[in-house]
Amino acid sequence: MSGTASVEIVAIGTEILLGHLLDTNSAHVARALADAGIDVYAKHAVGDNAARLEAMLRGALERADGVITTGGLGPTVDDLTKEAVAAAVGVPLVLDEPSIAAIEERLRSFGRTGPLTPNNRRQAMLPAGCVVLPNPYGTAPGFVAVRADGRFVACMPGVPREMKPMLADRLIPWIVRTYGIGDAIFTRTLHTVGISESLLDTQIETLFRSLENPKIAMLAHEGKVDVKIMAKARDRAAADAAIAPVEAELRERIGRGIFGVDDETLEGALVRRLTAAGATFATAESLTGGSLADAIVRVPGASATFRGGIVAYDNAIKTSLLGVDASILRDHGAVSEETALAMARGACARLGADVALATTGIAGPGGATPGKPVGLVYVALATAAGETDVRRLTLPGSRDDVRRRSTLGALDLLWRFLDRAEATVS
Amino acid sequence: MSGTASVEIVAIGTEILLGHLLDTNSAHVARALADAGIDVYAKHAVGDNAARLEAMLRGALERADGVITTGGLGPTVDDLTKEAVAAAVGVPLVLDEPSIAAIEERLRSFGRTGPLTPNNRRQAMLPAGCVVLPNPYGTAPGFVAVRADGRFVACMPGVPREMKPMLADRLIPWIVRTYGIGDAIFTRTLHTVGISESLLDTQIETLFRSLENPKIAMLAHEGKVDVKIMAKARDRAAADAAIAPVEAELRERIGRGIFGVDDETLEGALVRRLTAAGATFATAESLTGGSLADAIVRVPGASATFRGGIVAYDNAIKTSLLGVDASILRDHGAVSEETALAMARGACARLGADVALATTGIAGPGGATPGKPVGLVYVALATAAGETDVRRLTLPGSRDDVRRRSTLGALDLLWRFLDRAEATVS
Repeated sequence: MSGTASVEIVAIGTEILLGHLLDTNSAHVARALADAGIDVYAKHAVGDNAARLEAMLRGALERADGVITTGGLGPTVDDLTKEAVAAAVGVPLVLDEPSIAAIEERLRSFGRTGPLTPNNRRQAMLPAGCVVLPNPYGTAPGFVAVRADGRFVACMPGVPREMKPMLADRLIPWIVRTYGIGDAIFTRTLHTVGISESLLDTQIETLFRSLENPKIAMLAHEGKVDVKIMAKARDRAAADAAIAPVEAELRERIGRGIFGVDDETLEGALVRRLTAAGATFATAESLTGGSLADAIVRVPGASATFRGGIVAYDNAIKTSLLGVDASILRDHGAVSEETALAMARGACARLGADVALATTGIAGPGGATPGKPVGLVYVALATAAGETDVRRLTLPGSRDDVRRRSTLGALDLLWRFLDRAEATVS
Repeated sequence: MSGTASVEIVAIGTEILLGHLLDTNSAHVARALADAGIDVYAKHAVGDNAARLEAMLRGALERADGVITTGGLGPTVDDLTKEAVAAAVGVPLVLDEPSIAAIEERLRSFGRTGPLTPNNRRQAMLPAGCVVLPNPYGTAPGFVAVRADGRFVACMPGVPREMKPMLADRLIPWIVRTYGIGDAIFTRTLHTVGISESLLDTQIETLFRSLENPKIAMLAHEGKVDVKIMAKARDRAAADAAIAPVEAELRERIGRGIFGVDDETLEGALVRRLTAAGATFATAESLTGGSLADAIVRVPGASATFRGGIVAYDNAIKTSLLGVDASILRDHGAVSEETALAMARGACARLGADVALATTGIAGPGGATPGKPVGLVYVALATAAGETDVRRLTLPGSRDDVRRRSTLGALDLLWRFLDRAEATVS
């Protein structure tokens, strides 16, 4: 058994249509459907306008097996969406008693008693004969309304924390079951840092050409390149079996540049690695202004390794709190290899850490001097044992771009250092 | 003269369709069109698939006066997009000589000589009779192809820095001129902080009901509420004249909660206000881990007021670098009013600042203790003159949510303090 299903996705809401609210739901739904082996033909956004929504649904049902909508189920626009869906599918709206009971139960659990409001009752009006998708995280249920010819419109709320579990636990299993979809796409993503896209390309090119299932793809985004392994398989276990040898081959070819898989972040991998080594960590920042420390603190469990940081934005602070010699600042300037190294050493000493990172540079738009343009950045590393490393970066882009890439550059410096330290030990 | 035009927007690209790349172009185009007085009926995304693109364009041209596409003009998928457009409009593709010349000129300016590649020549193949939209920031020109019945398809590249000026400088003026659009919508947005949506609603409700042009609308997003004034007018000057009295009335009703207009951010307004007062500023952070300092440093010119910060993640650092008494930590715990105040005082003293902010709290997922749940946060302020303020927050959501809202809570505390200081002086 190996059926197929095609769908189109519709985001409902004037705020989304006019670009005042960014639609992240549609991207999530598209990824989840594609991974489940369901074809996505198109995505759309439409305002809170019943006639246009109905026309869009009718059009989509000509092209695809079904339509999946998000949003438009809030108390004020609720009726409009559901009436348009009922009209497109050709059924009336009726009161769904189990949904009434679920809404009452949910309100009781919050300590609300008394009769339902007209709004609550309206939320339980659903297209006749639809499949209800219960909503454990909100009052508005989702539903799948099936047309006489078998084509369907599925509606989910727009609140992501309500929509995502409904999609994964209810709607996708319903589509897979109904259309007898056999194989889904399972992915595993290897994240690399510090390797250029073109170098990576030469390392994996022959593999890239020879593979059919699983396939591999590269996706570059600011200094990091992902290698995605995509296997079409009946279930996760079969996919894992197909992915494992490809992953082993990729790891062999790429080497130490791989810092994590799937949802792992570089800062998460660093926290894990430092914690495993029993090493404490600290930061000294100038142009990155706290974003380097922030990247580390974002990781749950960072307290096992992270002691703290000093944001030495003013030069006087570089001297008073980090112990950077005034003569270094005078002779080499705040944006120099020497200052970066002195900051990293100072962070190690003053914060009592085994290893520290430092950043100094010119983020712009102002601050450039002769020989020191906007985008000139130094990132440095020092350890309590006296090891050091420093790298000079010349970064393009806006103030935000320069600061973000400086943070990444510092994290990359630490990753490489830990690689070398490990290579020396083993 | 006051015509109207309706359009639909199409983003082209499989990466966008499948949610691997977030489509920010469509939101930008929708906002710019709405502001120019052009009706946006719907937005769509479609993969690099000529047949589906052509069907989508034909469908959109039944409903609207025109279609605007972004993306699909890269060297590899270029032909596909342009052939679909030419077919939907009913014209052949022909070589556009001025575009060839422009591409040659652009490549020469980069020092590239010799004959054009086949790819370069393909970029100059355009639908016969189209209006060319020159691209000063890239090689692929945009264009408007007009069908026999006057309906149009306009195509722009997907790279935002090429697309945005093409839209503003070429395409929107073309639509406004062609359809004789008289009035555009001009907006002015007042940003507030520390006022709940419902309180703001009662303050402006009567105004909200009585206004026709300009209209006002509220948009809430995590602790900040925007009030948008939208005027339909012939030009900016006429709009400003209509907006001014409404803004004055809103400022009268809302009072000091308004921190800025349009593109201004709270941290930008704080930097401006502190700089104007000649005051220096510093931070002491625990759970926010550098993001408070980072928010300030993000503002160009922050160095005029910001001295630096200390991220005291480990309690030992709170004592060694911020001078928080070990007895305070022992008696009240790290997450307490007393510790928050001691951190703020320490930052003032150790960083030599006139005013300092501090944060301490439990971001989760771990770290809760009896009586101190995840989401419990204290933000505190101290001045060199000995003034203090502290606020207890109980914040919902994930680790990221709690940390982001803590940062906002601290910035809000400073904004209120500056308000009171000003009120005392004046």
